[in-house]
Amino acid sequence: MKRTSRDIRVANRFEVLRRILGAGPVARQEIAADTGLSLATVSNLVGELLQADLLEEVGYQDSGGGRPRALVAVRRSAGMLAGVDVAETYVHVEIFDTALRVLASVEEPLHPSQESSPAQIVAHIVSSLRAAADRAGVGPEGLMGVGVSVPGQIDRAGGVSVFAPNWDWHDVPLRAQLAEHIGVPLYLDNPLRAGVLAELWFGAGRGRDDVAVLTLGTGVGAGLAVRGQLYRGATNSAGEWGHTNLVMDGRPCRCGSHGCVEAYVGAPGIMARLREIAPDSPLLRPGDQTATIDALASAYHAGDPVATAVVAETARYLAVAIADLINILNPEVVVLSSWVAAKLGEPLLARARALLGRHALSRPLANTEIVLCRIEGNPVSLGAATFALEGYLERIGGQVTAAATRPRGHRR
Amino acid sequence: MKRTSRDIRVANRFEVLRRILGAGPVARQEIAADTGLSLATVSNLVGELLQADLLEEVGYQDSGGGRPRALVAVRRSAGMLAGVDVAETYVHVEIFDTALRVLASVEEPLHPSQESSPAQIVAHIVSSLRAAADRAGVGPEGLMGVGVSVPGQIDRAGGVSVFAPNWDWHDVPLRAQLAEHIGVPLYLDNPLRAGVLAELWFGAGRGRDDVAVLTLGTGVGAGLAVRGQLYRGATNSAGEWGHTNLVMDGRPCRCGSHGCVEAYVGAPGIMARLREIAPDSPLLRPGDQTATIDALASAYHAGDPVATAVVAETARYLAVAIADLINILNPEVVVLSSWVAAKLGEPLLARARALLGRHALSRPLANTEIVLCRIEGNPVSLGAATFALEGYLERIGGQVTAAATRPRGHRR
Repeated sequence: MKRTSRDIRVANRFEVLRRILGAGPVARQEIAADTGLSLATVSNLVGELLQADLLEEVGYQDSGGGRPRALVAVRRSAGMLAGVDVAETYVHVEIFDTALRVLASVEEPLHPSQESSPAQIVAHIVSSLRAAADRAGVGPEGLMGVGVSVPGQIDRAGGVSVFAPNWDWHDVPLRAQLAEHIGVPLYLDNPLRAGVLAELWFGAGRGRDDVAVLTLGTGVGAGLAVRGQLYRGATNSAGEWGHTNLVMDGRPCRCGSHGCVEAYVGAPGIMARLREIAPDSPLLRPGDQTATIDALASAYHAGDPVATAVVAETARYLAVAIADLINILNPEVVVLSSWVAAKLGEPLLARARALLGRHALSRPLANTEIVLCRIEGNPVSLGAATFALEGYLERIGGQVTAAATRPRGHRR
Repeated sequence: MKRTSRDIRVANRFEVLRRILGAGPVARQEIAADTGLSLATVSNLVGELLQADLLEEVGYQDSGGGRPRALVAVRRSAGMLAGVDVAETYVHVEIFDTALRVLASVEEPLHPSQESSPAQIVAHIVSSLRAAADRAGVGPEGLMGVGVSVPGQIDRAGGVSVFAPNWDWHDVPLRAQLAEHIGVPLYLDNPLRAGVLAELWFGAGRGRDDVAVLTLGTGVGAGLAVRGQLYRGATNSAGEWGHTNLVMDGRPCRCGSHGCVEAYVGAPGIMARLREIAPDSPLLRPGDQTATIDALASAYHAGDPVATAVVAETARYLAVAIADLINILNPEVVVLSSWVAAKLGEPLLARARALLGRHALSRPLANTEIVLCRIEGNPVSLGAATFALEGYLERIGGQVTAAATRPRGHRR
């Protein structure tokens, strides 16, 4: 519960760096005007970031008669961060500079039926991380931090995968297992939170207060931000929109409940719909979600009536579920993200948009921007690396905070 | 978007006063330990509140060898605040001291079929406010502020009732109309937000970060708090949980959509269920929601099978809807409030609780406390008066903030 003076200071530090990342070289006065913080506060925070070598002075700006204003920018070569996106079928690692631009990336495939033990997943994370760091010309020990996103519910402070339904993991101390191989600060969270962090810092959420980032993939969920900060809830599991009710006593969901949003708009739910509408459709690639969604997208754009019916029906469910989020959260922006959104997002959104007015209250609906994710590359890796950046920012200018940012058992 | 240094200061001022109200006479050191704010910050904020005469020094506490610590408490006689709860069938006004204890109250009935114009409602608010202030021994002009809760969607900054479905109001500038009669700062909002503010300051939300207060009455909705502060969303309409989907394409709802939570768990929805289960039931009092819910509650406690079936079926819907909130928001505490909760909340909650595990994810569910409102008296009046207290706190120690706390057209 405690919001310490230090928390406020750290939140302001995030905000200032976010503005500098967004604006490029910028004067302290402009940051102050932009954030609403006082010039004294901004100068103080910029001073800390300069001292930590994350920023550099890059010249002066004419201020129209007054003293020229010093410009600051992110020192891109200050260090490197890694973001790891662990999905059911791959481990994707990206190495970033401190402005979060990609320097190198490596992807290793996972075979869901054979590779699901923590030891196997850890081995893939470590090997792909080493390979990626190598490509970026840095040893893994030279990284400022590593953010890791894994599916499921995460105890972030403890670094534990509390429950990952896809692998049937329960209380796996993943951060401690990784720390045996990786001697830098490690941050564990899930794709919902990585996705919203990426949008907050680098995407449609930048400069916004209240944001919902919908992950539309095999799993379905929402990453939420409130007042410009990630909203975690009491146990870091806010945003389980995929497991809210769409059809009472409806389709069974892998969470154990029935009628959840995920069961209707997740990739397996879309495949089930295709099977219902046209059991013998050549679009259906049994056991291969990606190929099926790809085939649906191509067929839709070619005007295929089965694909059109599947998209229209999926959009009908999606509209109700998005309207629920708008009515409960009244967000400024809703972003559709992840791979199903990348492949089918455009027609789904166009059709859902036309139906939203039936379900969402008119004033919040009129004030919600609904967009597709426009982040290039992998937003989950980017968001995971941003966890590491935030962790680094928490550590500068003072002692390490109570919510340990160092992995347990880490002994450097 | 801007969270200014001033906003942070005001939020801290709220937090400090909340702790003092909760703790009674308390030392600055204890407030600092309790809130996580530095002692310097607390001393500074307490200094402002002392200077504004809201607090007083009330003695010293032995600190076990060190210097005795000065104790501060709320100066109850610092002034009076009014909270007005306008519902469809009554206007209820309470006058409070600065510790938010009731000094006087007045209720005037409204006749929904005959009294629904803004002029009629304004006249009732003004006359009941004058009567209550009179009983408290103060002129209405002597109040520190008046908070008014009306049903529907509110533009808080503008003081406008944007949409009140019960009266079919659209864009009624209620605050300006009231300001013609009431020459003190006026704050307009709705019962969802008044309800959560009351719980945050004086009820189950005190000291909690993430709170949902469910209004179960004729209308249904949720007041939300995030990080200990009221969560409004982009246009002050967050929390419209009553208008999220429960049954796709289900019962028509007065919002214009179908299958909303409100249509199943609001009082008219419960009456409709009773009618379905037992069309000729003597429990049914056509046109009288209050009498019907009262009759249902008595019959339930007497073991009546029809009442039991109605409560069980209502709880089944309520469980799904509460589970949705828990899955999306992962709150620390959920409070069931308003008149249906007061009359039927105990059996509804007991039965819903038994079903929650089927729908809510286990970890957030295990970490959510679900309780009935325990605030004595009218929580909406209390919350409305708290808006006025917060407004007063925003004004001390500096100039008036941009989000005008004075009514438009106010010329004192």
